[in-house]
Amino acid sequence: MIVAKGLEGVIVDTSQICRIDGNAGRLIYRGYDIHDLASSLSFEEVAYLLYNGSLPNQERLTEFTKQLTRQRRIPANLITAIRNLPTASNALDVLRTAISILGAEMPLKKPEMTDAIAIAAKIPTINASFDRIRKGQEPIDAREDLSHAANYLYMLTGREPDTVKVDALNKYLILLADHGMNSSTFTARVVASTWSDAYSAVIAAICALKGPLHGGAPAPVLKMLQEVGTPERAEEWMRNELKAGRRLMGFGHRVYRTTDPRAEILREIAEKTAPPNLIELAKKVEETGIRLLQEHRPERRLYANVEFYSAVVMHSVGLPADLFTATFAASRSIGWTANILEQVSNNRLIRPETEYTGPLNQKVVPIAAR
Amino acid sequence: MIVAKGLEGVIVDTSQICRIDGNAGRLIYRGYDIHDLASSLSFEEVAYLLYNGSLPNQERLTEFTKQLTRQRRIPANLITAIRNLPTASNALDVLRTAISILGAEMPLKKPEMTDAIAIAAKIPTINASFDRIRKGQEPIDAREDLSHAANYLYMLTGREPDTVKVDALNKYLILLADHGMNSSTFTARVVASTWSDAYSAVIAAICALKGPLHGGAPAPVLKMLQEVGTPERAEEWMRNELKAGRRLMGFGHRVYRTTDPRAEILREIAEKTAPPNLIELAKKVEETGIRLLQEHRPERRLYANVEFYSAVVMHSVGLPADLFTATFAASRSIGWTANILEQVSNNRLIRPETEYTGPLNQKVVPIAAR
Repeated sequence: MIVAKGLEGVIVDTSQICRIDGNAGRLIYRGYDIHDLASSLSFEEVAYLLYNGSLPNQERLTEFTKQLTRQRRIPANLITAIRNLPTASNALDVLRTAISILGAEMPLKKPEMTDAIAIAAKIPTINASFDRIRKGQEPIDAREDLSHAANYLYMLTGREPDTVKVDALNKYLILLADHGMNSSTFTARVVASTWSDAYSAVIAAICALKGPLHGGAPAPVLKMLQEVGTPERAEEWMRNELKAGRRLMGFGHRVYRTTDPRAEILREIAEKTAPPNLIELAKKVEETGIRLLQEHRPERRLYANVEFYSAVVMHSVGLPADLFTATFAASRSIGWTANILEQVSNNRLIRPETEYTGPLNQKVVPIAAR
Repeated sequence: MIVAKGLEGVIVDTSQICRIDGNAGRLIYRGYDIHDLASSLSFEEVAYLLYNGSLPNQERLTEFTKQLTRQRRIPANLITAIRNLPTASNALDVLRTAISILGAEMPLKKPEMTDAIAIAAKIPTINASFDRIRKGQEPIDAREDLSHAANYLYMLTGREPDTVKVDALNKYLILLADHGMNSSTFTARVVASTWSDAYSAVIAAICALKGPLHGGAPAPVLKMLQEVGTPERAEEWMRNELKAGRRLMGFGHRVYRTTDPRAEILREIAEKTAPPNLIELAKKVEETGIRLLQEHRPERRLYANVEFYSAVVMHSVGLPADLFTATFAASRSIGWTANILEQVSNNRLIRPETEYTGPLNQKVVPIAAR
């Protein structure tokens, strides 16, 4: 019996959404290279593409954007529920709870595109509302005239955001929107495979995204950069971490055997948006991490992963570190829901097995004899 | 490339918790046959066994029971949050939201036994509180002098429950407590594999349990029995369902190629607790279903599964149909958390792949040219 621990290399299904070539370092959504998508399109166009398999013409994009913007508002009872959570809550726990409350008002039904759009549209509103509430500020209503990226920044600050930041966040949202059978998307598909509803599948995905081996990494990356402080301290700090048996955050990926194309693009974005001393520091930490990890584990070369420059970009557009993973969810919710819809379009219950290695033939004896 | 759709027969890990022999129709927890466990033990003893790998002596059982009973109470802010949910909510959505609120007060940390006990202890309290709130009644505080099964019935009704019902529910809770890599337990392990926390892993499991192909089946089984109404109507009613292309609920299982041992035991329990006309009806529907499904799909013999007599037993102990899946969660939470603890004790990120079958080499053209 072969035990496929971690399911590494196990193909769980066919999919027409996303292709990762881990050897070549290529990422494809629906046939389009991620470089082409991030360089010239809006998040809305890419979301449409991931859902529908083709890029929208102007009429379809206008209609799709209208559907998204109409769904941005969250009901007053949800704002109240967020106010009632501890202000020290993890933003991802708040998001998970908020989607769960929204889902409690929905009937159990097969996931549909309207569910996908309703959920994806509301995540930025939930994140921004919580961020303001915990700071003692009033939540700001979504604006229908702003793009997905611009409206998110507007709801956080109440100010018209500058275009460099909007552009950076727009690209971030495109780059992270889908990535094959990553653990959260896979979780969403397992849940959808039981004929559970779209809200439940997304909530479960949020639960998986929270983990530091998945979406929880960017905030620790920023913390690492802040602790390192200056480029000349990088080597000593990172050697100490490795010596202490701790993991360097933001390096290595299950699938890529070369540079992650998203990390490359995010580095370019960071160069345009981040303060020069942060960029200099990040590049030094990246270079040092790759070198030290190669010394440490010569059998496999590790590179900076998508979380590494995600942290720099998200920090540079003004997001607080504890919104990083919740912002990742705002992007990846498109991939989750596209995958949920694909799963239910040709479903088979996902139900693997384990190999039992415990004892056999135990006999129950009365408690007095144990 | 072999696509293991649904992961049927794929071994995702070794486990020392549960063994299912689908050909022989045997279910083993930690080396003990499910018949032996259900016939003579308390739910508390079996929960201890699933967590620790051995049956407790009196001292350990007393200590474990104390830990569970101490954790039964839920905080006042959670009662308020449940009151603020729509009374028409699905009980499982309420449970999912409630665990999410509890989790929002916890730091992100590696799952521990204390988390497992805290979550498992509170699920009956959450279910019973919601059931009373939606009926306009006050929630009833848990009683520390009652067993897990007895206290659940007490919190629902406010009356000291009769021993036949307590015994039936105790056995139900044992029988459903674990079942290998079923979809919800697998979901919990995927989430735990990202180093997310115990609350998130359990919430995700609840999301998967909701599906009608998994834990959502018992309520539709009861509805089927009520619609059939009398034994002589069974054949016509069920033939019509199959003719209309609908699924007969409560039959068939991914793993068992013979009778499910839990269904056998639950039938015996039902014979002691259910009204004679309901038992007569259920047996006729079971027999008719097996026969018609054999005509309909001769290539594989299907049997009544655990959901079938679960529905009869849960109805007979006085549970409303829309608490069936939430009660299943009260039992399976033990298996979920035992598996979460096993996963993190020897972890590897669960991250499979898909085979991309979509187009390649698409070129982005300007929107005016689409």
